[in-house]
Amino acid sequence: MELPILADSVRLADDGVYILDRRVFPERREWVRCTSVEEVARAIEDMVTQSSGPYFAALWAMVLAARESVHSPDPRAHLECAGERLIATRPTNNHLGKAVRIALSTLDESDIVGSVTAGARLGDGQYRSNSRALGAFTAELLPDGAAVLTHCWADLYLVELVRGADRAGKTFSFHCTETRPYLQGARLTAATLAEMGVNTTLITDGMGAAVLAEKRIDALVTAADRVTMDGHVINKIGTLGLAIAAQAYEVPFFAMVQAPDRFAPSAADVPIEYRAGAEVLAAAGVGYPGVRGHYPAFDVTPPRFVTKVVTDRGAFNPSKLADYYQEEP
Amino acid sequence: MELPILADSVRLADDGVYILDRRVFPERREWVRCTSVEEVARAIEDMVTQSSGPYFAALWAMVLAARESVHSPDPRAHLECAGERLIATRPTNNHLGKAVRIALSTLDESDIVGSVTAGARLGDGQYRSNSRALGAFTAELLPDGAAVLTHCWADLYLVELVRGADRAGKTFSFHCTETRPYLQGARLTAATLAEMGVNTTLITDGMGAAVLAEKRIDALVTAADRVTMDGHVINKIGTLGLAIAAQAYEVPFFAMVQAPDRFAPSAADVPIEYRAGAEVLAAAGVGYPGVRGHYPAFDVTPPRFVTKVVTDRGAFNPSKLADYYQEEP
Repeated sequence: MELPILADSVRLADDGVYILDRRVFPERREWVRCTSVEEVARAIEDMVTQSSGPYFAALWAMVLAARESVHSPDPRAHLECAGERLIATRPTNNHLGKAVRIALSTLDESDIVGSVTAGARLGDGQYRSNSRALGAFTAELLPDGAAVLTHCWADLYLVELVRGADRAGKTFSFHCTETRPYLQGARLTAATLAEMGVNTTLITDGMGAAVLAEKRIDALVTAADRVTMDGHVINKIGTLGLAIAAQAYEVPFFAMVQAPDRFAPSAADVPIEYRAGAEVLAAAGVGYPGVRGHYPAFDVTPPRFVTKVVTDRGAFNPSKLADYYQEEP
Repeated sequence: MELPILADSVRLADDGVYILDRRVFPERREWVRCTSVEEVARAIEDMVTQSSGPYFAALWAMVLAARESVHSPDPRAHLECAGERLIATRPTNNHLGKAVRIALSTLDESDIVGSVTAGARLGDGQYRSNSRALGAFTAELLPDGAAVLTHCWADLYLVELVRGADRAGKTFSFHCTETRPYLQGARLTAATLAEMGVNTTLITDGMGAAVLAEKRIDALVTAADRVTMDGHVINKIGTLGLAIAAQAYEVPFFAMVQAPDRFAPSAADVPIEYRAGAEVLAAAGVGYPGVRGHYPAFDVTPPRFVTKVVTDRGAFNPSKLADYYQEEP
């Protein structure tokens, strides 16, 4: 089963980092070229890419930083500043920190560009193999023919869930929420599932509970931007409502994340990004005097609404996430 | 406190029925003129008006039918056919049947136009006074300063809730969901609340659970298209998910309806309107081969998620709706 275009949508080239513009995908396949760390950071802030896109963008931006550092009196400081700038673009997801750390993990000051490029490639490969593993573990939890409700865009995890099912001889169908205000579910998830030949139905965000109540759905499956060690799932705004409804109708909720965040014991340790309320007004195409918008970009689903957290090391009960790290040497 | 424009948005004139086009409101204030029952029926089907709009449209359409019937060999049959055509436009809400019945309740074949006009005016007055009563009863349930979450557009009930609060010396603030796919919450509710000077915040449909979890909300208050005698609340798709989330965070849900439907013992007695799935795709601005849309226009909230059903005769527990009719002679 071939990879869809969104699985390879941030690319390093000699003249910069090319990022597929998810704001206009799938109608248009436009690539934004970023020639500096600052341009990559702004592209992330401006939502040119999202979900796992910023991870890959940060990896390759660190290569740009390495190239820039050649002209710097203190290359290491230059790299560190670049990393801080990238991490600051989105506060809730900690992929960015991981990308920066792994890109610098092989730093050799005698060959800065080569060593950072090697670190970034390592990060690229690890992310892809981890996603493949967790996709396969998630597919194991679902029977052949399962109807899956998903929200927003689970990116490589979703792609690898479909590919993992395919390898296991299973076929799933998907209901995707459109995911307002930016419609990632409609624009990215539905388009990519269709690109992969999957049976796909689009619903509005408010229809999730109804399709769960109608017994159309066997499992709610989403990605998580972060999972805390005590089992709180932080993901795109809207996940919480679906998880509560899933539980009310006894449908399991599987949250996919490469690993729980050992630096976040609980939800209070995760800053929730509040974007400008005006974005909600703009998305609705309205703006009147006297109406404010409110836009928490993520919500927090407590462990009581989470059935399993599926990682690259398998599925865990949300109360047993410490076990994830017990396998470590 | 003056009435907002949407409280008087279907008007009878000598040359037809004028319906404010809610599809383009509030950006534009355009009136669709309907010169026949068929044109009114199509306007309802095409969503020119919705919520209580079809009730008023059906009242005044029956006056058009009365005018048309003057040229008919069997005026009564003509009126009955007109009523059937109007009732068939939207299957879930039973306002249409009520409008047709009350318009014909004073029918006098010696003065068809005059008597049907009188019946329609009676229906107009009753609906408004009932809405005033239930708005006041709902306002009684809420403390001064209450933060209310609402969904879709509760129309006159909402307007009368705000006016009832004002008469009682209370002020409420509102969070409105945008209500996809047609954005009635953003376009009608937020605009009208702002027109009435109310503190108003717009959120996307997926944010309801998060604002409930954040303890920003004192009550979920929506209209109901129908309430069954055993306490099922049928309302705009998305209500169910909010009601489930409200209960999970111990926030009361008050559903406003003039009366429970004595002809609907339970949810199975209410046909749910499934609109074309393509409308969901169109609203998202997407359409790819292989992606279907799914569009139940309403959902059914079971009584376990309903705190009170507020009617023109006061607030009832959802298990005690038979009491509504015990006051009848």
